[in-house]
Amino acid sequence: MEGEKSSVENKQILFKGYVAGYPTEEDMVQATSAIGSLKVPEGSAAVLVKNLYLSCDPYMRGRMSEPVTKSYTQPFTPGSVITGYGVAKVIDSGHPDFQAGDLVWGITGWEEYSLIRVPQVLVKIKYTDIPLSYYTGILGMPGLTAYVGFHEICSPKKGETVYVSAASGAVGQLVGQFAKLMGCYVVGSAGSKEKVDLLKNKFGFDDAFNYKEEEDLTAALKRYFPDGIDIYFENVGGKMLDAVLLNMRNHGRIAVCGLISQYNLTEKEANYNLFCLVTKRIRMQGFIEPDHKHLYPEFLELAVEYIREGKLVYVEDVAEGLDKAPASLIGLFKGRNVGKQVVLVSRD
Amino acid sequence: MEGEKSSVENKQILFKGYVAGYPTEEDMVQATSAIGSLKVPEGSAAVLVKNLYLSCDPYMRGRMSEPVTKSYTQPFTPGSVITGYGVAKVIDSGHPDFQAGDLVWGITGWEEYSLIRVPQVLVKIKYTDIPLSYYTGILGMPGLTAYVGFHEICSPKKGETVYVSAASGAVGQLVGQFAKLMGCYVVGSAGSKEKVDLLKNKFGFDDAFNYKEEEDLTAALKRYFPDGIDIYFENVGGKMLDAVLLNMRNHGRIAVCGLISQYNLTEKEANYNLFCLVTKRIRMQGFIEPDHKHLYPEFLELAVEYIREGKLVYVEDVAEGLDKAPASLIGLFKGRNVGKQVVLVSRD
Repeated sequence: MEGEKSSVENKQILFKGYVAGYPTEEDMVQATSAIGSLKVPEGSAAVLVKNLYLSCDPYMRGRMSEPVTKSYTQPFTPGSVITGYGVAKVIDSGHPDFQAGDLVWGITGWEEYSLIRVPQVLVKIKYTDIPLSYYTGILGMPGLTAYVGFHEICSPKKGETVYVSAASGAVGQLVGQFAKLMGCYVVGSAGSKEKVDLLKNKFGFDDAFNYKEEEDLTAALKRYFPDGIDIYFENVGGKMLDAVLLNMRNHGRIAVCGLISQYNLTEKEANYNLFCLVTKRIRMQGFIEPDHKHLYPEFLELAVEYIREGKLVYVEDVAEGLDKAPASLIGLFKGRNVGKQVVLVSRD
Repeated sequence: MEGEKSSVENKQILFKGYVAGYPTEEDMVQATSAIGSLKVPEGSAAVLVKNLYLSCDPYMRGRMSEPVTKSYTQPFTPGSVITGYGVAKVIDSGHPDFQAGDLVWGITGWEEYSLIRVPQVLVKIKYTDIPLSYYTGILGMPGLTAYVGFHEICSPKKGETVYVSAASGAVGQLVGQFAKLMGCYVVGSAGSKEKVDLLKNKFGFDDAFNYKEEEDLTAALKRYFPDGIDIYFENVGGKMLDAVLLNMRNHGRIAVCGLISQYNLTEKEANYNLFCLVTKRIRMQGFIEPDHKHLYPEFLELAVEYIREGKLVYVEDVAEGLDKAPASLIGLFKGRNVGKQVVLVSRD
């Protein structure tokens, strides 16, 4: 069987090198490596998985930059396979908690097969009546991000006004729905008519607007929130944040989830309106999902129930084929994705 | 006695008109008005006070600007007497809670005598073994500001690292002492050698530096906090905040008390480092003292005890004479005051 072993090819997407400014597809290269067999090395506690879905997430941009300050994420290694969240099937396992056939989600590689040396980071998928790709989104990192970001960081109360930017994205669409479920008044912004329609007609936002069509964001927000914003779920940063600060109500809360408008700028956009924090007694809090992993089990049960009952819906933008992964990731930063960006590597 | 009544003169400081940029002494004018008698109008529930000490506070700059957005403070009225915190003695009272001879602190006018039409805003002074001027500072608004800002907003823990800017000011000197009392490591910055000496030798800060002598604030903070800052008590804003953000530790907290470096700028300084809020999961919270008035009684008992025991000290910069009030207020924004800026109007 030696011949069969050496014949296994593994298509991969490698990270070429550190990026300044907007990344391009050329910053990632396709390669094919041969793997000896579809078995974990003898005596290893690793797990070999076949990747089914890969996730494109904004935080990955940070991993493409040359590390200057310590961050909560490790930079990618030039010349090595890109890593990120994904859904996979266990092919072989040296670890007692996993066996062939198990479906898992967690950090994997942008390749057909990945050898996961610390399989404890993988989560076994419990519910398979829900689309597997959802474990890169609503039932994965973005889902828990929206859940803790809204419920833990924003301290929401029924009847409050909530504004969500990048509202049709992987996280934003859920924040809006959580806010509606709590009885808040919710307005979202996004960058196209199609996305705005989704917000209003699919996700049930009370209102929505295309920020690209607004010359004056401060005035736009004043129009949508004549009495001000209690809660802002911040996904974009820059000018939008300054406009929001002017429109916040006293004792407002801002959950800073991400600043996608800034990730690709070599010179960051400035903010000028932080004095509003004092005059309006605003709490502005950054957070990342890994700090709140302990809430995943309770979140999962709730989200699965809501999905089954139709109380939560989720829109994905699925690109088919590993070779589409680089363009899919780049597209995030141009707002090309409509909904959560996923890459289908294999259906099973 | 009619002749005596009409002879009472009341020296006043009037607000000339709205200011852009740095205010000058000429933005306030001295005047003398005659008051009919040293009695409250018949049937009125007002209180007539003789002002003893007047307080110069940074927030007053906001009241000198033409109102564009609603703020938590009312703008001064052009042509009218300036108002602010002060310590006063009741001369006559139409209100059952006050009688002649009572010592009070609260909002009064920049004049010798003030008729307080809503005396409920005045607090009767309970402890007179403490210098009366302290009720404009450590036992007044700045004291409660430091107390709630540090204990309520910063969520401090023993052993944490604390940085205070404008640290020798009315609020900063107390924040540093509260932090030391809790067992934190405290560094402060101020704008002169004299102030830095005070921080280290009078207030017991672990270390202190003159920010004007530092070309690179980020590097300076790195030197004083090689392992980063857990808590920043923000009094200044602008470039200092950006330098602090780069030096914050994960899960750090920033209490935004004021942004004195920005109050007199017609174009606000920009902030570029808000991405640190996410990567370091920082909570940044603005607050104002009036929201926490209910904590004053507990604060007062604690502070008085600490003052008597010598656990809290307080440095004031007392200008003698009402006519010194305009220059004293202007001086705040130039950092001329050493300690809490007070104006002595009358000793009794």
